[in-house]
Amino acid sequence: MEPRESAIALWQYSPYYFPVISQWVIEQKRDGRILLPEEIRAFVLAYAAGELPDYQMSALAMAIYFRGMTAAETAALTEAMMRSGDVLDFSGWPRPTADKHSTGGIGDKISLILAPLAASAGLAVPMISGRGLGITGGTLDKLEAIPGFNTRLSVEAFRRVLADTGCAIIGQTDRLVPADRKLYALRDVTATVPSIPLITASIMSKKLAEGAGALVFDVKCGRGAFMRTRKQAHDLAASLLDTGRAMGRRVAALITGMDQPLGRTAGNGVEVAEAVDVLRGRGPADVRALTLALTAQMTLLAGVHADAATAARELAARLDDGRALEVFRRMVAAQGGDARVADDPARHLPRPGATLEVPSPRAGHVVFVDAGMIGRVVLQLGAGRRTTDDIIDPAAGVSALVQCGERVAAGQPLLRLHARDAATAESLRAEAEAAVEIAEAPRPQPPLILETLA
Amino acid sequence: MEPRESAIALWQYSPYYFPVISQWVIEQKRDGRILLPEEIRAFVLAYAAGELPDYQMSALAMAIYFRGMTAAETAALTEAMMRSGDVLDFSGWPRPTADKHSTGGIGDKISLILAPLAASAGLAVPMISGRGLGITGGTLDKLEAIPGFNTRLSVEAFRRVLADTGCAIIGQTDRLVPADRKLYALRDVTATVPSIPLITASIMSKKLAEGAGALVFDVKCGRGAFMRTRKQAHDLAASLLDTGRAMGRRVAALITGMDQPLGRTAGNGVEVAEAVDVLRGRGPADVRALTLALTAQMTLLAGVHADAATAARELAARLDDGRALEVFRRMVAAQGGDARVADDPARHLPRPGATLEVPSPRAGHVVFVDAGMIGRVVLQLGAGRRTTDDIIDPAAGVSALVQCGERVAAGQPLLRLHARDAATAESLRAEAEAAVEIAEAPRPQPPLILETLA
Repeated sequence: MEPRESAIALWQYSPYYFPVISQWVIEQKRDGRILLPEEIRAFVLAYAAGELPDYQMSALAMAIYFRGMTAAETAALTEAMMRSGDVLDFSGWPRPTADKHSTGGIGDKISLILAPLAASAGLAVPMISGRGLGITGGTLDKLEAIPGFNTRLSVEAFRRVLADTGCAIIGQTDRLVPADRKLYALRDVTATVPSIPLITASIMSKKLAEGAGALVFDVKCGRGAFMRTRKQAHDLAASLLDTGRAMGRRVAALITGMDQPLGRTAGNGVEVAEAVDVLRGRGPADVRALTLALTAQMTLLAGVHADAATAARELAARLDDGRALEVFRRMVAAQGGDARVADDPARHLPRPGATLEVPSPRAGHVVFVDAGMIGRVVLQLGAGRRTTDDIIDPAAGVSALVQCGERVAAGQPLLRLHARDAATAESLRAEAEAAVEIAEAPRPQPPLILETLA
Repeated sequence: MEPRESAIALWQYSPYYFPVISQWVIEQKRDGRILLPEEIRAFVLAYAAGELPDYQMSALAMAIYFRGMTAAETAALTEAMMRSGDVLDFSGWPRPTADKHSTGGIGDKISLILAPLAASAGLAVPMISGRGLGITGGTLDKLEAIPGFNTRLSVEAFRRVLADTGCAIIGQTDRLVPADRKLYALRDVTATVPSIPLITASIMSKKLAEGAGALVFDVKCGRGAFMRTRKQAHDLAASLLDTGRAMGRRVAALITGMDQPLGRTAGNGVEVAEAVDVLRGRGPADVRALTLALTAQMTLLAGVHADAATAARELAARLDDGRALEVFRRMVAAQGGDARVADDPARHLPRPGATLEVPSPRAGHVVFVDAGMIGRVVLQLGAGRRTTDDIIDPAAGVSALVQCGERVAAGQPLLRLHARDAATAESLRAEAEAAVEIAEAPRPQPPLILETLA
């Protein structure tokens, strides 16, 4: 790579050169050269400010799709996006701050448990989360199934809840990383979503703007995840960690399987109920185990626990003795929600118009539950969004889902559909049944946690 | 390549799916799949109609830059672009129609000679030409140096001049290939110009819309051309020929050198004067030879001449005996220009504010004249455009340029600068001098015509 002059010297020389230089930046990337940090910064800030047109950004995004970016370029892109808006600052805060990000999967309600659990262990968890689109649900949508729960707090209110309860979960405000909102919407319609550096910058710019000192990533891979292969997931995890370190954060990542749904529920209200179950020391073993593993990474990075064994033991105790549930209850109340959900979810969460149990057509061992198919069923039940304008039904979803390794008798329920009406439930019966594979002999299962990068 | 369903079936099914499907087309190309003709057609026509946003087209253009297109895809793109506007039809016309397109070079005034020469031999030449941008001049700009010459004829007037004189040269109308105008402007600012399929579709859609039955291409390569290497030029020529044949035209191409300027002039008025010189049977040998070679391909394709030797002899005679000049004179008059230019160009063309002869610093052999440098000098003299808004000085340019293989004495002029004033001329003296390389010994020169593809 031959050294070259920055385009920005010329750019700053005269605004007359702007279209020439922005085109030149695209050309550099198109031809496989490394962009300089100031070129990336100027391009992104001009885009966020509306001074650089969408068609130049989409051309650059496609060139990045083909040519990739170095770790330094990705960090510069992330930083420029982060600085397009407000950046929270928790320096001088009495507790260490930490957060977790998941790339999204079917039945992933971990955040609802992890945030109060980590807070109960002495961390502050300033979580800014997203909504679901397509088959993967969003944490905000799940929380909003709790009557009254407000995910649109001001930054001031967010800090207050965080100070009072140790955790708070809100949606992205208009002032947080506006460049990402704009760029993500553009990538979505220009076939430039699946690019590791662009995904990294999108995730990391938001997480860094939150101001947490430690960040743990749950990178999912499999049929129900955005990253289909182990290699893609590993590359994304490595890129997230490189970028986090370049930006001075403590970071760790788990690569976890998402061929099959997490837990026994998928939807919004049904997942809140399952999260409460886990917060009461019960619930599906996979949800509990993954929550403990991710939360342990947070407490280890933050220095709250000295080693993994201590972290696992201490955190499990907080699920079992109700201390994590108590933080959840206080967070729900502080964010305007009906805290009775923490005690009797079935009674205080929205109820579906109809439920339907789908029986097993035969006896045997559950050997596979297709996360992608369950996701599509849940979407059709009304628990997800096809487009950003769709309205979510908080009561819709799937519960009591069988899990791999279980035996079923013929006629025994494989899952329960929660639908707006009986006809909708009936229309999805065949698809739901087909998502569960029953075999005569059990089949060995891959571990849930495939790899830990720290 | 696995067979797949067309996206267009779904597209036509509901306009609701439009953004999804246009994105899907981009994704297919991004992933290296072959687009179906109806996908390309729908994408291009929606773009031309303003129903598909620039940012999707620029993303597709960048994906095409990286993935290329098959001959069938390029032909489908060309046809879709052509059909975005009016298409002329000369079927039933008494003379065979033919045209030539050059990819552009320094001092390329061939069209001004070739059109009347071919017409004098019995062809009809409906030439729709372009303006210059950057260092390569445009045929329209050159013709407009002739006082009164009108390049903005209506289609009806264009056909009338063509019927009366055998040739006519006008600019692209708003109704001719609007998709190309829009796409070219977009490619220009998104670093997606240098893509063989996109260049092919841009050139061919316009040439096919002209309706000529035979098309000859002069693909330039070298320092003063868009295609720098022989390989690039060959690939473009092959793509042009494939597409022309797929669209049912008779086609041929020459690949010609453009390291050094063509002829002894570069600019607008100065090139008209040189073209008139060649039309009088005089002028630089390289301009005459290339004009004869290109025109011969046209008459051969059109069946006017049976073989190359006959064509060369017949056409040379028409330059030498004034028959081609007579057609030029009539075309200029028919398009409103001062036809006296054909008899005494020096007197009837615009005159520069100042001229300056640049003397050779030493005695020796001219071994190289840098076309790129001459182009930049001519641009700074005011004979070209940096941006599409620039106004051209018709009198500006370079004349009496030495050519390779000539000997010069110290102090003998290397070229004459035609400038708006003496200071401008003086400011370019050093750059002009540096464009000409003088050596003690002569150096063998590559041939002007590197390859003929027919």
